[in-house]
Amino acid sequence: MSIPKANILLIGSGGVGTIAALNLEAGQLAHVTAVLRSNYQAVLSNGFNITSCDHGVLKGWKPTTITNLIRETTPESPKYDYIVCTTKVITDCPPSTVDLIKPAVTPGHTVIVLIQNGLNIEKPYLAAFPETIVLSGISMIDSHEVSPGVIEHGSADDLVIGAFRNPNLDVGAEAAAAERFVRLYSAAGKTKCIFGPDVAYSRWRKLVLNACLNPICALTGLDTGRIRLAGDAVEMLVRPAMEEIRAAARSVGVDLPEDVCEKVIEAYPVTMYLPPSMLEDVWKGNLVEVESIVGEPLRVGRANGVAMPTLSVLYNLLKGVQWRTKEKRGLIEIPAQGSDVADS
Amino acid sequence: MSIPKANILLIGSGGVGTIAALNLEAGQLAHVTAVLRSNYQAVLSNGFNITSCDHGVLKGWKPTTITNLIRETTPESPKYDYIVCTTKVITDCPPSTVDLIKPAVTPGHTVIVLIQNGLNIEKPYLAAFPETIVLSGISMIDSHEVSPGVIEHGSADDLVIGAFRNPNLDVGAEAAAAERFVRLYSAAGKTKCIFGPDVAYSRWRKLVLNACLNPICALTGLDTGRIRLAGDAVEMLVRPAMEEIRAAARSVGVDLPEDVCEKVIEAYPVTMYLPPSMLEDVWKGNLVEVESIVGEPLRVGRANGVAMPTLSVLYNLLKGVQWRTKEKRGLIEIPAQGSDVADS
Repeated sequence: MSIPKANILLIGSGGVGTIAALNLEAGQLAHVTAVLRSNYQAVLSNGFNITSCDHGVLKGWKPTTITNLIRETTPESPKYDYIVCTTKVITDCPPSTVDLIKPAVTPGHTVIVLIQNGLNIEKPYLAAFPETIVLSGISMIDSHEVSPGVIEHGSADDLVIGAFRNPNLDVGAEAAAAERFVRLYSAAGKTKCIFGPDVAYSRWRKLVLNACLNPICALTGLDTGRIRLAGDAVEMLVRPAMEEIRAAARSVGVDLPEDVCEKVIEAYPVTMYLPPSMLEDVWKGNLVEVESIVGEPLRVGRANGVAMPTLSVLYNLLKGVQWRTKEKRGLIEIPAQGSDVADS
Repeated sequence: MSIPKANILLIGSGGVGTIAALNLEAGQLAHVTAVLRSNYQAVLSNGFNITSCDHGVLKGWKPTTITNLIRETTPESPKYDYIVCTTKVITDCPPSTVDLIKPAVTPGHTVIVLIQNGLNIEKPYLAAFPETIVLSGISMIDSHEVSPGVIEHGSADDLVIGAFRNPNLDVGAEAAAAERFVRLYSAAGKTKCIFGPDVAYSRWRKLVLNACLNPICALTGLDTGRIRLAGDAVEMLVRPAMEEIRAAARSVGVDLPEDVCEKVIEAYPVTMYLPPSMLEDVWKGNLVEVESIVGEPLRVGRANGVAMPTLSVLYNLLKGVQWRTKEKRGLIEIPAQGSDVADS
């Protein structure tokens, strides 16, 4: 008996999303409809050109379907089993992905998978879709879209899937949905994808890296190697920020081991000069995940009385950078030069 | 009886220094030898082209002498009465201005005038020239070298001169040297130059601006207007940093008034979009005055038990920016990519 393939809608087909699509299709248990935006025309014409440590070199590869529009599902059209979001979480700027995927969600059927960093990112989904299972994906992958449709994937895909707790739903059903997704994702045998039920742990563990190294590198222009070479930047900035995250995690009952900061720091060799994604985004003039990655853990820690002086300054500086990016992109208008100055 | 003109050596003829030279020469009580570096060829060929709110438009103006070399003074050559330094204070990178001016200093005669921001900048001069009077100049001037030899001077020159205390010398002689310089500088009648004996007060007062707004703007890319428009950046970053400086000043007996932070913030209208010099320098890839403007007040405050969490993060981020600038300028070499990674 042949099992029908899972019907997956992918939102965000950049470095992370395209490798997810490729991996899901390669496993032959799913077909993927990828919703493309900035790279739609390029991929429509030429497909994806992928150089992947897991999948080799692919020229002109396309998932089952590509589209630049999310269509309303009708009683006749197949329901989506999973909607996988791999976009950046820019909560301080519309449109929200929640609004975007609304037409494609079948309540009680579709499972949403957020392969995204940061804290409390599930909240708007649980609010908008109270009967929907929402899964957490924490991905460690060095994959980048270097130009529209061109993906360079340099180090092994490592994905931890769990379920965000939805109090309206059965915890067993949530776990089952997560475990099914792990099976779909693992079917190609190319990647490490595991079920990690302790979602809070996975997400705070990743924040030790993201909430600290990302803003520090983005603000200084230093990459992962240079930050280790640049005087006492690790001791004076990176480690204090990481310890603040660890303290904030502890304040919500997530006990990260004492050596977690050291391990995260040591994971990046001194001479691997990798710009974290947030630094790349600042270079490119893109918006950054300032609220989900930095603002939320700061608010959580502070609400529990944790002193977070380093994170607080990083957060507020990064908000300044974000404001400037929005202005450059025409999302903020400023008064004309001199318009509030009295004639003299 | 005609009084011989004061013989002045000027180190650093950019935005601030060139207007100082022009002003001193215009007063006709001094002639100026300007030591030029990056703009030497341009000024040698074309002179300075100056648009000044105080002095009007000057094409091809030159001080009495321009040179690209500081010559040893000999018994025959005229001694310098004043050596005026208007360069940036980059203490974390050679050469030091102290070493540079050594050949031109006549001990017991020459007076050194540091028209420069920051704290403890006189220390290396007092150490190298124990019999020399060293004056403090705190300048508020909106003057910029927009290209080599081209100076745009937009708002009135405002200079406070005092004497750094040299315990080997008579305090009256120090004050007299300061007052004489004020006379030379004021003679043209174009500028506000006053004798301000409380040097510590003047310098900490200026740091409320420089130690805070400069690094915050340099790190975020926001200028003086935009920092006020950008959400709560003033409340969350600028004002806390300024209050830390005020607390550090208080810890060394300098009582800045309670409304000083407000006054400094309000001095920049919301719609005057002026990039602070440190932001301009970051844009241009220049080194910045991280130690004299940020590091020193931080060290002074901390040594006196003042909590300075905001300044500390700003300082360490700025050191990261400085490190990267040094690397870009070839002053730091980094190991080759992958050279510390084991073969796999």
